[in-house]
Amino acid sequence: MSSVLKGGRLKRTRRDVVNFISSLESDKRITLSTVLVNEAHVIALARCGAIQKPDARRILRALSSLEGYNFPGRNAEDIHVVIEDYVTKHTSRGVGGLLHLGKSRNDQVVTAIRMTLRSEIIELSDQILTLEFSILKSAKKHTATVFPGYTHLQPAQPISFAHYLLANCASLSRDVDRLSEAYRRVNASPMGAAALAGTSFPLNRRLIARLLGFDGLVEVSLDAVGGRDFALEILGNCALLASDLSRIATDLIFYSSAEAVLVSIPDEFASTSSIMPQKKNADPLELTRAKCAKIATNFNSALSIMHGLSSGYNLDYQEVTPLLWGSIDELKACLRILTEIMPRIAVDSKLSSRRYLEFTAATEIANLLVRKEHLPFRTAHQRVGSVARSALAQGLTFKDMKRSDWERALGRSIHPRTMSSIAEALDLDRHLRMYRTSGSPNPQETKRLISQELRSCARSRTRNARLEARLRRSMQELRAASKM
Amino acid sequence: MSSVLKGGRLKRTRRDVVNFISSLESDKRITLSTVLVNEAHVIALARCGAIQKPDARRILRALSSLEGYNFPGRNAEDIHVVIEDYVTKHTSRGVGGLLHLGKSRNDQVVTAIRMTLRSEIIELSDQILTLEFSILKSAKKHTATVFPGYTHLQPAQPISFAHYLLANCASLSRDVDRLSEAYRRVNASPMGAAALAGTSFPLNRRLIARLLGFDGLVEVSLDAVGGRDFALEILGNCALLASDLSRIATDLIFYSSAEAVLVSIPDEFASTSSIMPQKKNADPLELTRAKCAKIATNFNSALSIMHGLSSGYNLDYQEVTPLLWGSIDELKACLRILTEIMPRIAVDSKLSSRRYLEFTAATEIANLLVRKEHLPFRTAHQRVGSVARSALAQGLTFKDMKRSDWERALGRSIHPRTMSSIAEALDLDRHLRMYRTSGSPNPQETKRLISQELRSCARSRTRNARLEARLRRSMQELRAASKM
Amino acid sequence: MSSVLKGGRLKRTRRDVVNFISSLESDKRITLSTVLVNEAHVIALARCGAIQKPDARRILRALSSLEGYNFPGRNAEDIHVVIEDYVTKHTSRGVGGLLHLGKSRNDQVVTAIRMTLRSEIIELSDQILTLEFSILKSAKKHTATVFPGYTHLQPAQPISFAHYLLANCASLSRDVDRLSEAYRRVNASPMGAAALAGTSFPLNRRLIARLLGFDGLVEVSLDAVGGRDFALEILGNCALLASDLSRIATDLIFYSSAEAVLVSIPDEFASTSSIMPQKKNADPLELTRAKCAKIATNFNSALSIMHGLSSGYNLDYQEVTPLLWGSIDELKACLRILTEIMPRIAVDSKLSSRRYLEFTAATEIANLLVRKEHLPFRTAHQRVGSVARSALAQGLTFKDMKRSDWERALGRSIHPRTMSSIAEALDLDRHLRMYRTSGSPNPQETKRLISQELRSCARSRTRNARLEARLRRSMQELRAASKM
Amino acid sequence: MSSVLKGGRLKRTRRDVVNFISSLESDKRITLSTVLVNEAHVIALARCGAIQKPDARRILRALSSLEGYNFPGRNAEDIHVVIEDYVTKHTSRGVGGLLHLGKSRNDQVVTAIRMTLRSEIIELSDQILTLEFSILKSAKKHTATVFPGYTHLQPAQPISFAHYLLANCASLSRDVDRLSEAYRRVNASPMGAAALAGTSFPLNRRLIARLLGFDGLVEVSLDAVGGRDFALEILGNCALLASDLSRIATDLIFYSSAEAVLVSIPDEFASTSSIMPQKKNADPLELTRAKCAKIATNFNSALSIMHGLSSGYNLDYQEVTPLLWGSIDELKACLRILTEIMPRIAVDSKLSSRRYLEFTAATEIANLLVRKEHLPFRTAHQRVGSVARSALAQGLTFKDMKRSDWERALGRSIHPRTMSSIAEALDLDRHLRMYRTSGSPNPQETKRLISQELRSCARSRTRNARLEARLRRSMQELRAASKM
Repeated sequence: MSSVLKGGRLKRTRRDVVNFISSLESDKRITLSTVLVNEAHVIALARCGAIQKPDARRILRALSSLEGYNFPGRNAEDIHVVIEDYVTKHTSRGVGGLLHLGKSRNDQVVTAIRMTLRSEIIELSDQILTLEFSILKSAKKHTATVFPGYTHLQPAQPISFAHYLLANCASLSRDVDRLSEAYRRVNASPMGAAALAGTSFPLNRRLIARLLGFDGLVEVSLDAVGGRDFALEILGNCALLASDLSRIATDLIFYSSAEAVLVSIPDEFASTSSIMPQKKNADPLELTRAKCAKIATNFNSALSIMHGLSSGYNLDYQEVTPLLWGSIDELKACLRILTEIMPRIAVDSKLSSRRYLEFTAATEIANLLVRKEHLPFRTAHQRVGSVARSALAQGLTFKDMKRSDWERALGRSIHPRTMSSIAEALDLDRHLRMYRTSGSPNPQETKRLISQELRSCARSRTRNARLEARLRRSMQELRAASKM
Repeated sequence: MSSVLKGGRLKRTRRDVVNFISSLESDKRITLSTVLVNEAHVIALARCGAIQKPDARRILRALSSLEGYNFPGRNAEDIHVVIEDYVTKHTSRGVGGLLHLGKSRNDQVVTAIRMTLRSEIIELSDQILTLEFSILKSAKKHTATVFPGYTHLQPAQPISFAHYLLANCASLSRDVDRLSEAYRRVNASPMGAAALAGTSFPLNRRLIARLLGFDGLVEVSLDAVGGRDFALEILGNCALLASDLSRIATDLIFYSSAEAVLVSIPDEFASTSSIMPQKKNADPLELTRAKCAKIATNFNSALSIMHGLSSGYNLDYQEVTPLLWGSIDELKACLRILTEIMPRIAVDSKLSSRRYLEFTAATEIANLLVRKEHLPFRTAHQRVGSVARSALAQGLTFKDMKRSDWERALGRSIHPRTMSSIAEALDLDRHLRMYRTSGSPNPQETKRLISQELRSCARSRTRNARLEARLRRSMQELRAASKM
Repeated sequence: MSSVLKGGRLKRTRRDVVNFISSLESDKRITLSTVLVNEAHVIALARCGAIQKPDARRILRALSSLEGYNFPGRNAEDIHVVIEDYVTKHTSRGVGGLLHLGKSRNDQVVTAIRMTLRSEIIELSDQILTLEFSILKSAKKHTATVFPGYTHLQPAQPISFAHYLLANCASLSRDVDRLSEAYRRVNASPMGAAALAGTSFPLNRRLIARLLGFDGLVEVSLDAVGGRDFALEILGNCALLASDLSRIATDLIFYSSAEAVLVSIPDEFASTSSIMPQKKNADPLELTRAKCAKIATNFNSALSIMHGLSSGYNLDYQEVTPLLWGSIDELKACLRILTEIMPRIAVDSKLSSRRYLEFTAATEIANLLVRKEHLPFRTAHQRVGSVARSALAQGLTFKDMKRSDWERALGRSIHPRTMSSIAEALDLDRHLRMYRTSGSPNPQETKRLISQELRSCARSRTRNARLEARLRRSMQELRAASKM
Repeated sequence: MSSVLKGGRLKRTRRDVVNFISSLESDKRITLSTVLVNEAHVIALARCGAIQKPDARRILRALSSLEGYNFPGRNAEDIHVVIEDYVTKHTSRGVGGLLHLGKSRNDQVVTAIRMTLRSEIIELSDQILTLEFSILKSAKKHTATVFPGYTHLQPAQPISFAHYLLANCASLSRDVDRLSEAYRRVNASPMGAAALAGTSFPLNRRLIARLLGFDGLVEVSLDAVGGRDFALEILGNCALLASDLSRIATDLIFYSSAEAVLVSIPDEFASTSSIMPQKKNADPLELTRAKCAKIATNFNSALSIMHGLSSGYNLDYQEVTPLLWGSIDELKACLRILTEIMPRIAVDSKLSSRRYLEFTAATEIANLLVRKEHLPFRTAHQRVGSVARSALAQGLTFKDMKRSDWERALGRSIHPRTMSSIAEALDLDRHLRMYRTSGSPNPQETKRLISQELRSCARSRTRNARLEARLRRSMQELRAASKM
């Protein structure tokens, strides 16, 4: 137990117990935020007359010397008592002893976590956008690069590599949106809730909130300190983002396998084996996949910690915070590595001539049998399927099948124009241009979608910049108000 | 394999395999949505000239006879082939065989899930609001009912029972907000994405979307069918809601324990033991707690299913959907039971006279020693703590402590007015009125917050009603368009 | 509340509350076990003189008419009160009212779950062994069938398909062992613990245990009814088994992909697409993978339900049981489908002639450079790696590389015998026979391991049969004892 | 990429990529084991003639200088290349380059993890036993100390505090058993499996295993390096242990609450609030509960990482290991703190005189009505229940109820001896002695169970000591064999 808390209700807490319960290591992350919270609180105490201005001034001076300070961090419960200790030592027992008036570690810690978290959210969001820009840049080059679209890990229909990239951008954009919506719930101030019930000093909670850059209050005092749904929500958003990144890693590991060889990853992002000299392993992608599985389960860990807890602050919450920072840090590392890898992925430019991929034209062949030969789709589907089956049985592909093969399957003659349409569909480069729906891999449509996505990312980036500017302004206001 | 899919690419699938992979049981939930999707799709096919109007009309007639139909559900892979089978049987092979033109089970199933899910979201949101209204009604009666506020499961400071209830409403309101934001991402149409790449028929995706009540498209076709982030997001929101409900259940189980006896639960919501005749167990609360733990982990299960999957539809997704319906159904059951229980909770009206709760006045006594005796807060905190310690050591409480006890602890004389202030703080009913901060348990403030929360719930309810009206209008538009 | 429990401590429980808390649906699984528990208990009651023999006889007659009975299952809390109701109705209030003497639903339900579970464990274990036998039968045919061994999803070294199969048997055998060890902890009797504290009737707990086929007691009464670690342990074992099955499914999905084409799955275990006529999807394998993810997370769900609960029975435990049955049922379905699929997997018999797989000989080439050319392994590793690199850069493989290429890489001349050794290593069929360590894919060694594994599986099967015989004997003893 | 691996197949890996994929931080834990693995491997290489004895000697000398060495740990992929680098630098390229002959990082890392893990298992098991001894010591003092046994968090029947403690020992003993069984699966050697397929050098795998203290081999080479089920199993066992410790913490937090006050925790294990001077929070217990929730979910995280991975080593496995060490370290910290707390828990010695606990005699009163008044149990149960109800309605307890009250409830006269039996049952101290079943809280029985549990713990401790001795002997054998 810190010296500021000893000598009252309890005898000393044992050293080993303090070490066991100490959050100092994890508190390093919120040290600056905690100092700022103390400053804003002292300003509000002075403004409502709870403490004298000269005392406030002395405390604020001590606190400002603490910004950027790196606490030795030993034998203390947490950063809150360390700061009060420090202020008391650098002012006096009479003055430093006023610092904790009308507040509690309960509201202070959650306020500092929210402050640190909101900056992390903006940073995370910006890193997702950076990855998106890097992906979209690559997409621009590949709007006409044929790539197999898969379902069930089987080649399904021809798409372009750009279309594949765009699909991943679309899910990342939703991650950005979710973080932006959660930001509003994170950026509300608990300060003034004290332990759980507010205080009898007429503290202006909205003043404190404004000085700390919050957009509003977590109003009900018990709600402000009891519960961690804002952190759980971000952990949930991190889990969804991790799930999206993990899918990209999984795809690229398969696409770059010796069997698929659809893409290749630069040597500088691969490792070899210590024993098998021919190996080229996509190590950073495997680790991204694994780290993302871990991040995805951190939400579950946090929920389990919270299960069975009663209302009001419980020390159990302390174990939730490291999960939050852990998820965010790992995600940033994964985003950074993917941002480097994605634009350097080389696509095999000759995929359209791979024989086994001719089968991906099957749906379009069925479609044109509907249009040209007026078959019901289901009949066309079956006939094309049986042609595929007999081709495979002979080790052949669609291009090997002659008009007579098709006619045998259909049980009647086929118009020559139909045969030339089939040939056209089997030319996968031309195939892409046959798609006519909105959002399809048709190169024209893909270009439109890339432009649209770029504009959307730019808007998100601007929004993040505005949020950061807002935080900087409140910091200046806090500085100004400190000069009382 | 359904008859509509057999006879082409593959020989028959074994009966036991079909049973193993069949989703028919879970598809029951999306049968109506799937029929509507087929209707809108056929209208779009006819409008773009892909099929003839008379054929469309016959198909639509067959489909409309299917709304509300309960499929026998055996020996088929899924609802999609069952519907196509039905339509084919009720029209002809030539006409029914056109139904699947330009679409795939991949876009169809995810569209139907989104349609069913959006109604579930509105219903879930409404049920949360119903619970909130029921809680707030009870809160109105208890703005001055003293209740111990806990931290670390220890009585901390006096609050009111209304304040406790309000804190829970606040977190439920955030659940409502999250669902409302997620609704926007759920309510976008994948139809027209077909298997993953759109189609060569010039289908108007926006028309289909509008007829089905969607606000827009999931535009990129691969994104529209590959992935399930909309479902994961809702499972995440359900986990957070479950965490909130679980906390209420946990609280009430403790509050109604024979040791706490703060509240009592009506007999009709309790069970007795088969062997211990004196027992009164809060069974529905324990089950709510347990079910909520299960719901909270469903998100984790779904994330784990998705881990390691490549882009594009994978059959694994099929296992995610039952988790979604499971979480929602269990939540609705828990919400219903809590809505019944909450207003019937009886609070012990004499809590303010419980001796051991006098210690919850300690913070306020320290505060007034700061104000009246000009002690630094930290010093006051220690002195009050040592008085508490010596009182407890003698089996006494604060009210037993005389002026001399306080003076001994402070090491100096105390003004008589301070002593009367202490007495006032020890009167827990008056204590509540001493709180002066926004969001505190002061009864005046609590009344203001209740009104505010009621208005906010009313707004949310109106928003839900608007969403429902929008869905009804699109249904009418679909009906009208079906008459071609 | 059942009629047997009403009219005492509590007024009636509401109908909706009873439905919410009812476990009847899940209790169906333990109905027979519960009846048997009642029988053994009544015998023990009679033997210790707590009830009269004629009364016992009447109760036993009523109970025996219940074996195999299918309860309508509505409006009751659980099977326990339904049985007591039934017995009371079929005897008299005076006689039936004796049934619950000295026991509680708390010990009764957990005893019945353990009884049902132990049979499930034996069955599950037997099904794993059946899968193993089916795999080993296939392995016998493929001891010399070259197959690429992968690391990082990249071809690493040549193995045989039998070696691949054996590796999976090895992990399945550990699953069998774990279940067998857990069985001992499951098969201990809680009966006689009553609600949590035993009883004042001198019940012979060991007699009851023996009649019910248990090997011993869960002795400490509070421990016997409070907690569910035996169920959690089985859920954990199920998670590990699921993880093993999931890996097999994942492998086969990749091995049967259009890119790898290492194996093919019979049509009867595949499905086609509703739109893409060429598709052949390994649906049952994808579902196995997904179901296994779900099963793996059920353990987590159960742990989360248990978190934060106090000692002694809590109704929350009721939500753990369906997870247990769910995991077991899904595992049995997955085992059944894999047992059908595995022996029907066709391996491409010409894998040894695939050019890109020549690189898997690289480690052995490095090894022989150490042996024949006396290079340090690390140097050999690098030289072979650089040959691989230059081959790949030219679109060539190892067999295309001439002596001069190797000499250039090594920077010196190579003995002709070394070149012929390299050629030998590149003949992947001969390659397998070069492995000389225990447990390696050398066909001789593989045959030895198959025999060894077959013997081990046979031993496990015999052990299971002994356990079943033991259960049948206790059943006969119970029957005999019932005739008093 | 380490210098030992560069210059072959791949160009340099980027510095940021190496940092991203590096396992050096986590490898610190297995450094010594990895050195020993290298030593045993070199001995086997020399014995089979793959390398020359003088070379082996030089390598062994370099390796032995590494034991206890603390690697600077920067810019390297992992400990394996760091060791090879070091040996090469301290011998020569020609000699050091032989070190990796016939092995791979794949078998090396998993062997080192197993070696480190088996020591951790023994240590963990010993710490559980230490906690058990500490609990049993306390139990000896409390065999006759009345304590309420709870179900549904409601006082159910009187037990003793010793009985409560014994129940927790029983579950901890099962944790010890599980660890001991898993130890056998952990303590098998993968060495000689190399990358996945063994090697063409005639390495004696059993020799290596023996020198490293293993009891046998993980025989099938692909199985030996692909998969991590041994680690998952330990993580599962850790989850179960965590669940048991968490329950103890949860109990004590409730038992020491201001409402229950059944036990008190020494000040030195508690903390006060920074604002509420009267607070005494059981911080280390809350953190134990929270840490245990985290540990319980680590198994889930590891399972999720493994999901969707193909056979053979994947780098994803690297993320599993820190979870393993994390769970073990946190468990050891929790065990240590509980070992300190448990014997210092003070139980309220006057619990038997608490009025509300009289109701816990209800079951026994019903029992004696069966014995003395020949009521059917169910009738007795209802009558006692209705007496409890009417007592509670008047604010009374059982002792306040007169003979006439009981007679009114029963609807007939009661024998005076029955009334004195009721009085006896209401004397909770005597109540304990009425229990007559094996495993019940009867003080005589409790003493017997304590002795039995003490003997069982002593046996487990001896078993652990034997395992440790076995490991020390193999170390000596390795030392001896190193002197070649």
